[in-house]
Amino acid sequence: MEATPSHCLVSYDQLRSHFAQVAELEELDAIVNWDQAVNTPAGAGPRRARALAALSRLHHRLLAEPQIDEWLDRAQQESHLGKWERANLREISRLHRRATALSTELVQATTLACKESELAWRRYRAENAFESFAPYLEVVVDRQRDVAQALADRLGVEPYDALMDAHEPGLRAAEIDLVFAPLRTFLPDFIDEVVARQKDETVVRPEGPFPIEMQRKLALRMMVATGLDMTRVRLDESHHPFCGGVPTDVRITNRYQQDEFLSGLMGVLHESGHAKYEQRLPEAFLDQPVGKARGMVLHESQSLLQEMQVCRGLAFMHHLRSVLKEVFPASFAQQPDAYGVENLFRLQTRVRRSYIRVHADEVTYPAHILIRYELERELIRGTLRVRDLPEAWNEKSTTYLGLRTLGNDSDGCLQDVHWPSGAFGYFPLYTLGAMAAAQLFHAARSRLPELDRHIRRGDLQELNQFLDVHVFAKASSESVDQILRGATGQSLNPQCFLDHLRARYAGSQ
Amino acid sequence: MEATPSHCLVSYDQLRSHFAQVAELEELDAIVNWDQAVNTPAGAGPRRARALAALSRLHHRLLAEPQIDEWLDRAQQESHLGKWERANLREISRLHRRATALSTELVQATTLACKESELAWRRYRAENAFESFAPYLEVVVDRQRDVAQALADRLGVEPYDALMDAHEPGLRAAEIDLVFAPLRTFLPDFIDEVVARQKDETVVRPEGPFPIEMQRKLALRMMVATGLDMTRVRLDESHHPFCGGVPTDVRITNRYQQDEFLSGLMGVLHESGHAKYEQRLPEAFLDQPVGKARGMVLHESQSLLQEMQVCRGLAFMHHLRSVLKEVFPASFAQQPDAYGVENLFRLQTRVRRSYIRVHADEVTYPAHILIRYELERELIRGTLRVRDLPEAWNEKSTTYLGLRTLGNDSDGCLQDVHWPSGAFGYFPLYTLGAMAAAQLFHAARSRLPELDRHIRRGDLQELNQFLDVHVFAKASSESVDQILRGATGQSLNPQCFLDHLRARYAGSQ
Repeated sequence: MEATPSHCLVSYDQLRSHFAQVAELEELDAIVNWDQAVNTPAGAGPRRARALAALSRLHHRLLAEPQIDEWLDRAQQESHLGKWERANLREISRLHRRATALSTELVQATTLACKESELAWRRYRAENAFESFAPYLEVVVDRQRDVAQALADRLGVEPYDALMDAHEPGLRAAEIDLVFAPLRTFLPDFIDEVVARQKDETVVRPEGPFPIEMQRKLALRMMVATGLDMTRVRLDESHHPFCGGVPTDVRITNRYQQDEFLSGLMGVLHESGHAKYEQRLPEAFLDQPVGKARGMVLHESQSLLQEMQVCRGLAFMHHLRSVLKEVFPASFAQQPDAYGVENLFRLQTRVRRSYIRVHADEVTYPAHILIRYELERELIRGTLRVRDLPEAWNEKSTTYLGLRTLGNDSDGCLQDVHWPSGAFGYFPLYTLGAMAAAQLFHAARSRLPELDRHIRRGDLQELNQFLDVHVFAKASSESVDQILRGATGQSLNPQCFLDHLRARYAGSQ
Repeated sequence: MEATPSHCLVSYDQLRSHFAQVAELEELDAIVNWDQAVNTPAGAGPRRARALAALSRLHHRLLAEPQIDEWLDRAQQESHLGKWERANLREISRLHRRATALSTELVQATTLACKESELAWRRYRAENAFESFAPYLEVVVDRQRDVAQALADRLGVEPYDALMDAHEPGLRAAEIDLVFAPLRTFLPDFIDEVVARQKDETVVRPEGPFPIEMQRKLALRMMVATGLDMTRVRLDESHHPFCGGVPTDVRITNRYQQDEFLSGLMGVLHESGHAKYEQRLPEAFLDQPVGKARGMVLHESQSLLQEMQVCRGLAFMHHLRSVLKEVFPASFAQQPDAYGVENLFRLQTRVRRSYIRVHADEVTYPAHILIRYELERELIRGTLRVRDLPEAWNEKSTTYLGLRTLGNDSDGCLQDVHWPSGAFGYFPLYTLGAMAAAQLFHAARSRLPELDRHIRRGDLQELNQFLDVHVFAKASSESVDQILRGATGQSLNPQCFLDHLRARYAGSQ
C-alpha cells in the first residue's frame, strides 16, 4: 500500500529517471558477473574484467553526476512527497555523497592494487608464502586507508566506519563493540563446553554415493518449499555458492559432493534465504535505490535465518526426514539410523574447531569473525603493520579458537579473499546478520504459536508472511534499526543469539 | 605478421583507446544477449530489454562522439601508420558516419515501432491475421524508409543499399542483381528436375529415439573435429540455434529432437562454422573495428561452407558413418542400411518445396531469398504497399517455388521475424554467403588435392589453414571483394554455386 510512487514531482522525477538508468547498468553488471562465475572460460577473463571495469566507470559517472545536488535540493522542497520518495531521496543523497568523495585517481589506483593483490594471493596462498604476498597487501591496506580517510572526511565518521558504510549504511564500530562484547566473553568457554558434550554423542553419517542429479532435484524441491517463485529463479553450479542476478531474475549457484548431500543441501537453503529477500522486494520501486534490500546485515540475516534458525533446527528435521526418504530411498532403507530425526539434527549441528571460516559451524563462526574484525580495524587504524599480521592472527586464533596458525598462514591470515581484494569492513556483518536472524526468528516464534508445527511439515508460508510485512516489503524505506524494532520490538540485541546457541547446543531444543 | 599494432601515433592512439571502450560495451551486450536467449525467465524480459536499450544508447553515444572527426583528420596525417591501422581508420570512419547520420528521435521512434511490431507479430502470426498485423508493419516500413533515406543522404548511396551497408559494408543492390540474375532463370526448372529425380531414390531414415544427451555428445565431438578451441566455446540449448558471445568466449546454441538427430547435428556444424571464424580472428586487433569479421556475407559463407559444402558432401559421409557407429551402436546394428555412406548422403541432400525458409534445403533456399529480396526492395522503394504484401508474396512464391500462399500468410509473408523487427537488407546476404561458400570451397579443393581424402577422415585441418590465411587472419583489414579475390582469384561469381548445385543434385558427386 505504501509502495506506490507519487506523481507530479519535477526534480524528483529527474532523479527517479536518472536512477532508473543506474539500475539498468546494475542489472547488466549482475548478469555478467553471474555469467563470469558460472559460464566464462578462464581465457576470456582479462577481457571480461576490462568490460566490467568499463561498466563500473559508467556506473560511477552516473552516481557522481554533478546535477544530482541541484535536483536533490529542489526535490526536497517539492510537496506531496510520500514516505517512500523521501526515503529514496535519502538513499540517493547517500550514494551520491559516497561517489563524489573519492577522486578518480584514487579509485583507479585502488582498483589496480586490489586486482594485482588478488592475483598474487591466489599464487602465494597456495604456496603458503606470506612474506612474498605481504608487499601486495601493504599497498592494498595503504590505498584502503586513503579511501577510508577520504570517505571519513566527507561523511564525518571514523575511517573504518566509512568503509563499513558501503555495505551497511550508518553502521558504526562503536555499536559493534557493544554487541560483540558479550560474545567475546561467552564464546571460548562455550565452544569448550559444546565440543566436550558432543564428544559422547553417537552420530551416524549417511553413506553415499548420492548422485549429483538427485541432489540437484532435492535442492530444487527445497527451493519450492522455502517459498521461492520458481519462474524467476535459476539454480546452477559454481565453485563458491552465491546468490546473484536481479529481483526479477534471481540466480542461485551451489556446489555438490557425491559422497555426502548435507553441505550441498544447506548451501542451497542458505542462498535461498538471500533469494527470497530479493524476490519479495516491492515491485514498484525495483529500479530505485529505496527499493533495494536494506543492507548486508539484513541480507545475511535472511540466509542465516533460513539455514541456521529454521533448517538446522529440530522441528525441520521431521520434514527433511520425509523428503530424504523419497529422494534417497535405497540409502534410507539401508541405514535407517542415519535418517532418524535426532540423528539428522546432530549431523546438522556438529561443532568443531577448524581453521577455515567458510567451513565453520554456527558456534565457532563468530570466533572466526572476532579475529578478523579486531585485526582489520587495527590495519585500517594503522596500529597493526601488515608484516606483523601472521603473529597477530596466531594470537587471536589461539585466544578465540584455541588453534595456533604460526607457519601455516594459508589456513590463517591468508585464507580469505576479502583483504587481498580490498574488502575491509565486511566481516563483522556476517555475525551481526546471525544475531539479527536469531532475533527475528525469536520474534516470529513468539507471535506465531503454530510456527514450529508448520516447520515440522516443511511449511514456511507463515514465516514468509511475517518477513514480508516486517522486512521484505520495507526494502530500504527504513533504517535497519527501525526495521528490527518494528519486527522484534527492540534494536539489535546479542542476547537472542546467545540464547539460541545455549538452547540448541547446551540445552533443551 | 601484419597483425601487430604500430606505435607512437597520438591521435590514432586516442581512437584506438576510444574504440577499445566500444568493444567493451559490445562484449557486455553479447553476453547479456546470449543470456537472454538461453537463461532469462520470461518475466524478467521487459526490464532486461530496457537495460539492453540503455547499453545501446551508451554504445551509440561512443560511436557518435564529436571528437572522432578531429581525431580521424589528425590520425590520417600521422606517418608510420601500417596497413592495419589505415584499415582501422577506414572502419572507424564508416561506423562514425553511420552513427551520426540519424537523429536520436528517429532512432528512438524506430526502436519503439520495431519493438511493438515484433510483439504484435508473435500474436498475429499465430492467428494468421495479416490484416491485424499490417498497421504495425506499416509503421515499421515507414520508419525504415526514413532511416534508409537519412543514411542514403549521408553515405551517398541508394536507400536500400544504405540499409544493407549495416550488415555488409559497401554492398549494392546493383551487384546483387547481377549475381542473382542467373539464379533467377536457373532455379525454378532446376528444382523441378531435382525433385523429379529424387522421387525414385530409396532413402532409409534411422529410427529413434536418440537420447538428447547422446546427441549433445555427438555435437561436442563434431565441434572438436571442425577445429574449434574447446576451451573457449560453449554449447547450450535455445529455441533458435545461433552463435553468439565474443571471440575469446564463443557461444553456440543448438536444438535437438529425440526422434531424429540429423537436424541437430547439421545445426551445430553450421553454427560451428560461424564460431570458427570468430575464434580465429587475429588476437592483436580483437578490440578494434578492423579486428572484426568482415561482414555478414563472409560470416554466412563460413557456416554454409562447413555445413553445406563440407559436411553434407559425400566425402564427409565416410567419417560421419564411423562416428555414428560409435555414438548410436544399437541403431546402427539394427538398421545397417540407414547408415550406409550413400544413404546418409541422400538423407542430407533431400530437396523438397516447402513454405518455411528456415527448414529449406540448399536448393530451394535461394528461391525463398529471391522472394524476400525482391519484395523488401519494393517496400523500401515505396512501390509496394504493406497491405498488398500477401498478394505480392503469393505471386513470387508461385513463380519461384510453385507454392501458393493466399489465405495462409502465417506460412507466407508472416513467417520471418526480420521485417516485423525492422531488419531490411539482410535476406540477400544468406544467398551471397552460399555463393561465397561454394567459391571458397572450390578454390580450396583446386589448391589442395588431398582435401577430399582428409575430409573422408573428418580432418578439416588443411581446410582450416587455407581459411586462416585467406579469410580469418584478414579480419576487416580488406574488403570482402579483396578477400574473395585473394582466396579464389575472382570476385563473387554465382557460377561456382550453380556448378555445385548441378554437381551435387543433378550430376556425379
